[in-house]
Amino acid sequence: MSLAVATEGFTHRTAVPLRRVPACVAFACQRGARTLRLVPRYGAGAVDAEVRYLWAGAPGAPTVIVQGGISADRDACANDEHTAPGWWEPLVGPGRAIDLNHVRVLAIDWLDAEDVGAPSVSSEDQAGALAALLDALGIARVAAFVGASYGAMVGLAFAARHPQRVGSLVALAGAHRPHPLATAQRAVQRGIVKLGIENGCVEAALSLARQLALTTYRSGEEFGRRFAGGAEYRDGRFQLPVEGWLEYHGRKFVARFDARRYLALSESIDLHDVDPKAVRVPATLIGFTSDRLVPLADLCLLQQQLGAPASLEVIETAYGHDGFLKEPERLAPLLREALNTCGD
Amino acid sequence: MSLAVATEGFTHRTAVPLRRVPACVAFACQRGARTLRLVPRYGAGAVDAEVRYLWAGAPGAPTVIVQGGISADRDACANDEHTAPGWWEPLVGPGRAIDLNHVRVLAIDWLDAEDVGAPSVSSEDQAGALAALLDALGIARVAAFVGASYGAMVGLAFAARHPQRVGSLVALAGAHRPHPLATAQRAVQRGIVKLGIENGCVEAALSLARQLALTTYRSGEEFGRRFAGGAEYRDGRFQLPVEGWLEYHGRKFVARFDARRYLALSESIDLHDVDPKAVRVPATLIGFTSDRLVPLADLCLLQQQLGAPASLEVIETAYGHDGFLKEPERLAPLLREALNTCGD
Repeated sequence: MSLAVATEGFTHRTAVPLRRVPACVAFACQRGARTLRLVPRYGAGAVDAEVRYLWAGAPGAPTVIVQGGISADRDACANDEHTAPGWWEPLVGPGRAIDLNHVRVLAIDWLDAEDVGAPSVSSEDQAGALAALLDALGIARVAAFVGASYGAMVGLAFAARHPQRVGSLVALAGAHRPHPLATAQRAVQRGIVKLGIENGCVEAALSLARQLALTTYRSGEEFGRRFAGGAEYRDGRFQLPVEGWLEYHGRKFVARFDARRYLALSESIDLHDVDPKAVRVPATLIGFTSDRLVPLADLCLLQQQLGAPASLEVIETAYGHDGFLKEPERLAPLLREALNTCGD
Repeated sequence: MSLAVATEGFTHRTAVPLRRVPACVAFACQRGARTLRLVPRYGAGAVDAEVRYLWAGAPGAPTVIVQGGISADRDACANDEHTAPGWWEPLVGPGRAIDLNHVRVLAIDWLDAEDVGAPSVSSEDQAGALAALLDALGIARVAAFVGASYGAMVGLAFAARHPQRVGSLVALAGAHRPHPLATAQRAVQRGIVKLGIENGCVEAALSLARQLALTTYRSGEEFGRRFAGGAEYRDGRFQLPVEGWLEYHGRKFVARFDARRYLALSESIDLHDVDPKAVRVPATLIGFTSDRLVPLADLCLLQQQLGAPASLEVIETAYGHDGFLKEPERLAPLLREALNTCGD
């Protein structure tokens, strides 16, 4: 995969005025888009895809790729053009574990199937887009790829295909393949969204799919602690304490996410399949004891079979799969250690 | 609650010819319906409800109530009018753990909200219907109440309200209250069914709700063992191994179950709330290690707080909540022991 066209301007989903190279307050910051030539795994041939990215941090410092779950975006941290906190704000920024005084973070918005002109999008397609973006930005090699959840899957796909372009891999709550129970739960989520598309009720359906996803992210212990108590009769029906929380987050998700994009990225997790032996990049794997989507047993297997030295760090938490978002204080020393020892 | 009208004939959902007292091959068998006066918890007052029941076993022997999950029916075992295997066939019958040579099994089809003329139906309503049915059949007291899943919840409600009418309680995979994570999962299931009702796609929605329920019944280990392997491209889309299984069982459920009945019984689980101290009947509690719907911790709490001596038996299994259906050989000795020592 190679660079096709380096766009002069930047395009944005939000109505932010176009600027060539937006200057951030404390660090160099590029937030833009490039049109890159990709060969998607499930497509009919090469396509030109627009890849939206953020590249921010100390000018001239080594680059670290940072990618999150399917609902995360390129804004891992607040920046000049996105002043709201990023999805990993506590861990990315000047002086933080991924220290933008010493590295530059590079991140993309995930491509969906439409972006790559194919019926499905693969974790390899995302990895290919990142590699093509490195070419476009003139980055020969990144110090590390730090990926969480789907980002960890893409990190594994990137390390398997482009080992010479990454010093080390830090994979949080993601493995070489999805667990069949998690696949079943996502298949039902996609079934709900498809039902909504087919029957003119896509927003309500997307909300329900997100609510189902939420029940898989946190542990039973966490649900038990937060939502004890009986039903209340309100507005003509019984309401359980957990229902208000589910519905609130369902609505919030519908306001910021698209149903077809959700279908494509959810499916992409379930199509993900990387041979651990093909990953010949030193790796730090991080798992969470109560993660029911990515069981520790799968990370143990990945560690055993990885084609390079790999350590497995386990964080005991009740936050389940959401541990990568909810345990920043325990993750910070692990990330600092992994990035200090990364081989760039 | 008291008997209102003892019907002379029997009514059936299936098109079986009416008979007064159907004779079974090896044991006395009544399979019919009674109209009983009930005072539903969420209703406006007394109602006459039709209660369909099975009463089968050794003539004159002590009666044991047997109730299963929300999708189970009165036919715990094959009988003269229902020759297909019952939902608990391996455990109920002549010579089996619930031995119809020595006891008579009594079971009802669950009432739904419509049956009791109320917006919601409670586990106490089911217990009340069973008590009124005992009056109608002239049964002063049952030797035991054996309930699994929702049936265990109803057993606890029955024991709390009618302690003088039951010798002992055997509660499998059911507790004094639902777990908030399980409530969240069922709330999403009900949301899917309501979406289907509101948008003219109720069958597809009920299928998806059932598929979601299936992901909560079995353990991750069981899913991992059965559905390993990657996606196959068929009929214009990728299909994961677990999807065919989910869809098959979704269709099967739609063919035999009604959406509004599902809504009512699912909600009834989440409204269930019995004070363990109010249960003054000796109890055997049976739990399954991998049951994510009814965690062992909740059964431990129930055992500690129950208002009478209670033992807790734990079965180590990968079948999760479905352990009560899938582990008959390990359940049989526990049921025999519990019924031999029951105080009638």
